[in-house]
Amino acid sequence: MKLNDHASGRHFLQIPGPSPVPDRILRAISLPTIDHRGPEFGALGLQVLAGLQRVFQTQHPVIIYPASGTGAWEAALANTLSPGDAVLMFETGHFASLWHKLALRFGLAPEFLALPGTDAAGLPNGWRRGVQAGLIEERLRADAGHQIRAVCVVHNETSTGVTSDIAAVRRAVDAARHPALLMVDTISGLACADYRHDAWGVDVSISGSQKGLMLPPGISFNALSPKAIAASRTARLPKAYWAWDEIIESNKGGYWPSTPNTNLLYGLAESLQMLHEEGLGAVFARHLRWAEGVRAAVRAWGLETQCVDSAVHSPVLTGVVLPAGIDADRVRRTIHERFDLSLGTGLGKIRGRMFRIGHLGDSNDLTLLATLAGCEMGLKLSGVVLAGSGVQVAMDLFAAQPQRAGAPVS
Amino acid sequence: MKLNDHASGRHFLQIPGPSPVPDRILRAISLPTIDHRGPEFGALGLQVLAGLQRVFQTQHPVIIYPASGTGAWEAALANTLSPGDAVLMFETGHFASLWHKLALRFGLAPEFLALPGTDAAGLPNGWRRGVQAGLIEERLRADAGHQIRAVCVVHNETSTGVTSDIAAVRRAVDAARHPALLMVDTISGLACADYRHDAWGVDVSISGSQKGLMLPPGISFNALSPKAIAASRTARLPKAYWAWDEIIESNKGGYWPSTPNTNLLYGLAESLQMLHEEGLGAVFARHLRWAEGVRAAVRAWGLETQCVDSAVHSPVLTGVVLPAGIDADRVRRTIHERFDLSLGTGLGKIRGRMFRIGHLGDSNDLTLLATLAGCEMGLKLSGVVLAGSGVQVAMDLFAAQPQRAGAPVS
Amino acid sequence: MKLNDHASGRHFLQIPGPSPVPDRILRAISLPTIDHRGPEFGALGLQVLAGLQRVFQTQHPVIIYPASGTGAWEAALANTLSPGDAVLMFETGHFASLWHKLALRFGLAPEFLALPGTDAAGLPNGWRRGVQAGLIEERLRADAGHQIRAVCVVHNETSTGVTSDIAAVRRAVDAARHPALLMVDTISGLACADYRHDAWGVDVSISGSQKGLMLPPGISFNALSPKAIAASRTARLPKAYWAWDEIIESNKGGYWPSTPNTNLLYGLAESLQMLHEEGLGAVFARHLRWAEGVRAAVRAWGLETQCVDSAVHSPVLTGVVLPAGIDADRVRRTIHERFDLSLGTGLGKIRGRMFRIGHLGDSNDLTLLATLAGCEMGLKLSGVVLAGSGVQVAMDLFAAQPQRAGAPVS
Amino acid sequence: MKLNDHASGRHFLQIPGPSPVPDRILRAISLPTIDHRGPEFGALGLQVLAGLQRVFQTQHPVIIYPASGTGAWEAALANTLSPGDAVLMFETGHFASLWHKLALRFGLAPEFLALPGTDAAGLPNGWRRGVQAGLIEERLRADAGHQIRAVCVVHNETSTGVTSDIAAVRRAVDAARHPALLMVDTISGLACADYRHDAWGVDVSISGSQKGLMLPPGISFNALSPKAIAASRTARLPKAYWAWDEIIESNKGGYWPSTPNTNLLYGLAESLQMLHEEGLGAVFARHLRWAEGVRAAVRAWGLETQCVDSAVHSPVLTGVVLPAGIDADRVRRTIHERFDLSLGTGLGKIRGRMFRIGHLGDSNDLTLLATLAGCEMGLKLSGVVLAGSGVQVAMDLFAAQPQRAGAPVS
Repeated sequence: MKLNDHASGRHFLQIPGPSPVPDRILRAISLPTIDHRGPEFGALGLQVLAGLQRVFQTQHPVIIYPASGTGAWEAALANTLSPGDAVLMFETGHFASLWHKLALRFGLAPEFLALPGTDAAGLPNGWRRGVQAGLIEERLRADAGHQIRAVCVVHNETSTGVTSDIAAVRRAVDAARHPALLMVDTISGLACADYRHDAWGVDVSISGSQKGLMLPPGISFNALSPKAIAASRTARLPKAYWAWDEIIESNKGGYWPSTPNTNLLYGLAESLQMLHEEGLGAVFARHLRWAEGVRAAVRAWGLETQCVDSAVHSPVLTGVVLPAGIDADRVRRTIHERFDLSLGTGLGKIRGRMFRIGHLGDSNDLTLLATLAGCEMGLKLSGVVLAGSGVQVAMDLFAAQPQRAGAPVS
Repeated sequence: MKLNDHASGRHFLQIPGPSPVPDRILRAISLPTIDHRGPEFGALGLQVLAGLQRVFQTQHPVIIYPASGTGAWEAALANTLSPGDAVLMFETGHFASLWHKLALRFGLAPEFLALPGTDAAGLPNGWRRGVQAGLIEERLRADAGHQIRAVCVVHNETSTGVTSDIAAVRRAVDAARHPALLMVDTISGLACADYRHDAWGVDVSISGSQKGLMLPPGISFNALSPKAIAASRTARLPKAYWAWDEIIESNKGGYWPSTPNTNLLYGLAESLQMLHEEGLGAVFARHLRWAEGVRAAVRAWGLETQCVDSAVHSPVLTGVVLPAGIDADRVRRTIHERFDLSLGTGLGKIRGRMFRIGHLGDSNDLTLLATLAGCEMGLKLSGVVLAGSGVQVAMDLFAAQPQRAGAPVS
Repeated sequence: MKLNDHASGRHFLQIPGPSPVPDRILRAISLPTIDHRGPEFGALGLQVLAGLQRVFQTQHPVIIYPASGTGAWEAALANTLSPGDAVLMFETGHFASLWHKLALRFGLAPEFLALPGTDAAGLPNGWRRGVQAGLIEERLRADAGHQIRAVCVVHNETSTGVTSDIAAVRRAVDAARHPALLMVDTISGLACADYRHDAWGVDVSISGSQKGLMLPPGISFNALSPKAIAASRTARLPKAYWAWDEIIESNKGGYWPSTPNTNLLYGLAESLQMLHEEGLGAVFARHLRWAEGVRAAVRAWGLETQCVDSAVHSPVLTGVVLPAGIDADRVRRTIHERFDLSLGTGLGKIRGRMFRIGHLGDSNDLTLLATLAGCEMGLKLSGVVLAGSGVQVAMDLFAAQPQRAGAPVS
Repeated sequence: MKLNDHASGRHFLQIPGPSPVPDRILRAISLPTIDHRGPEFGALGLQVLAGLQRVFQTQHPVIIYPASGTGAWEAALANTLSPGDAVLMFETGHFASLWHKLALRFGLAPEFLALPGTDAAGLPNGWRRGVQAGLIEERLRADAGHQIRAVCVVHNETSTGVTSDIAAVRRAVDAARHPALLMVDTISGLACADYRHDAWGVDVSISGSQKGLMLPPGISFNALSPKAIAASRTARLPKAYWAWDEIIESNKGGYWPSTPNTNLLYGLAESLQMLHEEGLGAVFARHLRWAEGVRAAVRAWGLETQCVDSAVHSPVLTGVVLPAGIDADRVRRTIHERFDLSLGTGLGKIRGRMFRIGHLGDSNDLTLLATLAGCEMGLKLSGVVLAGSGVQVAMDLFAAQPQRAGAPVS
């Protein structure tokens, strides 16, 4: 197995996940596999479970699945709902749409709320903004019979670069005095953006390994609330692999009922240690600063970010909208071929209109400036007329503001 | 992340999976994660999918899940069956029992055939022998209305060290002229023991990464037949993450609909390359020879193997039954503490009565002799009176018969 | 052993050696150490010896020492000279001066030719230009009695960024009809700049692992000519560890008389394979293009390169002279602390006046642009007034000229 | 770069060095190379220099060379002696002979003391015993004019498996009231056998990385005394690369005057950490126990060890003498081909008569039993009639005596 044989220098993986994996983590996952029933493993299990609680900011159980994030979406629904249950979802972009599609396919009755219409650029309004808590509140108030069993939203919409206000969604549910469970996909938000499972009253948080945790893909998570656990006792969708009960029981000793993903758990232990060493507050501040630099570059180029609400720009990634008539995927290919830089494609309804720059994982000021340089050169080579140099503006910003340790997270 | 800090020398992981992972594979999985939507990934995907077909000896699709083997059990059922369907399963040991329990939990109506009774040693007769094809044929003949939708058996029962005759099961189903699907768990059999998905007419074969493929756990497989694919089109159990249709479609280009387990796929590519270099026939012959050496040692000690039918001894592992009154887990702990050697515990109905020696993965004559030496010393230290030296007998056997390349697999 | 624990992202090692080591090579050196007397080792030895001949462009023996480049300097002298021998050396910078000092210390009588004087910037004239072949010819002509036993020059002067014309030196020696041996230090030139041991009539070429070969430091080389080998038979300086005769004899089977540096030889095999895959011509073209980009940036900043002769700019590194009154090492420290970027210090007579940017090893357009961005930000932060943006100019240049495979080296 | 592609399982490297390198160390040496002039490096340098002092049990400087042990032999002589100096050496085996040859070649006048004669087996008496301190005392007493400038002996003779009593040599020199320097090669003794540079009054201790320190080859050491440092100020052999003075000066900050072997120093830091975690006393006890087990096996086979003086059996390796008429190298080849086990060859005067089993490095009871099993099978396959099973005896011994932490080293 060889990668990138002929090229000189490191590939720049600047998609919004899988993120560039730090060497420390790559080394950890290559340690010899051990007996998942032995005492050394139990200690590892307890360590990663406790560390995940700190990252989700929760006192309640966190479930680790050997599965991708899609599996963790399914797990959240399978554990808490019954066939045909009504679910309220909100269309913030492609990943919200995929979760909606999964719910449909899984035999639920999801309702997909969205901001209507498209804007001047022909892009759907709802894909440029966050979850509209007001619409959710309104819909829940109308559900006098409490048919809706769950509200499902995406925290950080990886397809657009919008980080929704989850606390506002919680307040909306509470204001409507509605008993629905609140389920939040923070697959790409966790460990990049502040996320507070307990404080925000989330019932099931869904996340994955390959974004802020900086691991390869392959494990994903459900963080639970007591209300979600209670719901799982009566929910009637079939569940076995995903079932929380046996996992929670087995986790008490640091073990799992079926074979865990041992080597990725080594990586998770290393990741949690790195996050602990730096401090979550500093981690969040670091991503905010990077995002600010990248957005400044996009503005300097005279281009628009996909997100148009300055309150909800993502610290994790930035969507860059290209002028009409420019095929964003052709630009991406040029950049990939010429500068060995991978960017995220436009997904679903905005395919071909934009690309996405990930600013997460094993990065620093210089790798981000290199990324912006690759974009800037590639845009020009593709015939996009730029208003100015984004690299220059980002250099000025990074030089002016040293990276600082963030305030501690309360 | 550090393992085994204070000890000198390598740990001996001789459980029947996860198997000792070769360095080549550990190195492969630590390569930098790449874009799972990029061209380099597509080539990797096509390569591992083709390689898996060779290992399953099939022309039909093989599905790769980021999941443990338990997930692949669930996937096989979820894709092909409808709520409440009758399924015929056969109790060969603990893993057959776990699959049965999963089917129950998943809303099916599994019937669990078994050989009745216990033997003189107090061990269940069915846990010392393979699948009884005659009993299956008899039961299917009695199912005139064809209510039974699937026959589910375990190829290599990891809890006992018995490798059942799958071709005989196929003949039994055919003899009964019954339309049930044949599903086979070859999680620990694949790539150790000869396994022929197409030739044996298996509809769904289930396997995992952490046994004969010598990978860490974390990915698992369904190999399909056209009949199974047809069944999946009408089956009504909810399925989304496990659904074959989207995966088969996406696999055509070497991609997956949800995020694949990139780094374990690097390991899989390396594993398939290693199996290809050696040749499957040589791989099977190697495991058979090791198993013969280990069984000779058990006989020399004057102990019984768990398997009592010489036609179905497993090439993958050997269960060692201890004399009444000896706690097998205490023996295992002594061996682990004194000689840094992990052995498999007795599971389920035979807990405490036996332990299991894995002879698979990155091993050779000397590591197996070291394993037998650890067992022999630990048994004596635990007060087990041995009839003779198993190490001596195994040395004689290994010295007398050089490892040879096996005959090619037709 | 942990490095760089707290930082996010990769360190930028842009000193002119040790160069950034490719992952392929780091992985190779971590393979298990083998028996240096076994058959597998002999095959490895023959492989690296043949590969080195291709890189030195020679048909004659190449000696590998477990030693730094300084050791290989000493070896060249110890094998060919006798106590008190006169040697003609040329002062091109700090490394030429160190070699001269070593010769003195080693009991030889080195004469150190140099261009006289300093320029307007107060920098020694000879440290901004290459070897002056005319001065050498003149001096050799004056040595009617042929007391001078060797002419020693540096091919790529790592302290200044000047690559001297070795063919011209050869012509000078020939023109003077002088029998002196020609010894050339190409420690930092080999495998970055074109270097032709045989075609240029070099008698001993000295090189090391940690520059163009992209290995960690620890092994170094002497490439020999028949004339040098003949000289070694009568030379009277004591030699044992460095003695060519036993090594050449032992090398015939791929072995060494004393214990070789096994794991670095794994890395060397990988390095030679990488150079072979790319082709030496492409390798040289790649470094020339990078150097052009970096020099363009320096010009755009309004700063001078250390090298003032456009015929001999180094493809390996660029020296950047800072305005009078600016402490170059303070600038370097600022860049290191703020941007995790290591640059080369000014050495010897130009300490504090300049810094050096390495453009070799595991690099690409984007890592070099990141390096220039780090320099540009750090220069500004240090109060250096820049005429323009070097990053911008280098982006334009890199975008305009795709990296191409170079012409084959004849 | 691939090793051992086609084989299953780990190679057994049981030569007496290079020793099996622990994974922790292989991983450490593959960390990215850093700037050897930067602050992070200085901290590393100080750490390894301090750690080495603890291992040599000295308060005085230890010099690290990027060189093999042969280089460190030369360095010890080059720093302290002048051309033509008389040196007294003692023939304990092949490595003592090589050092003697090096001294001759280096322009010294070494005298080579030895026990005369051969024994019944036709083996040289002196190669089966340790340094005879009495002969040294006698010779020094006869040197009334103090022409002898140094006494040079080997601590652990790697070619025979004899560990000489260095304290006795010190007493002999003192008893003779002779001012000669005492130089000791502990290349294969250090960090396996107790070694006390200061307490034993050694002036220069020579060692290497690839034995008890469990590193790959490539760095070697001189531990100094104040008397040796004083001698180096007046000694007149040419020295530059080996010269202690500049290295000692540069080491004060954790740096080196020429490029150090960065990645092997990472491994050295890890090795020193491992030795520190275990404690030197426990390390020595571990090797003694292993050696006892291996010798018991040799006795059980009815064969002789090369060492015939029970007071000086080496804890590092055991030489096994084969019956007359058996070609030991043919036996070794058989063992290598059939069981993937490398053993040490007989060297020099005992070539073909014996082989050597290394019991050092990353080993444990089970790997040593595997090694003995490989030897036992190979001896039988080669037609050697064995009196009994060495494996059985070693199992009994290892089972009877658990490995314990050794007493602390005073």
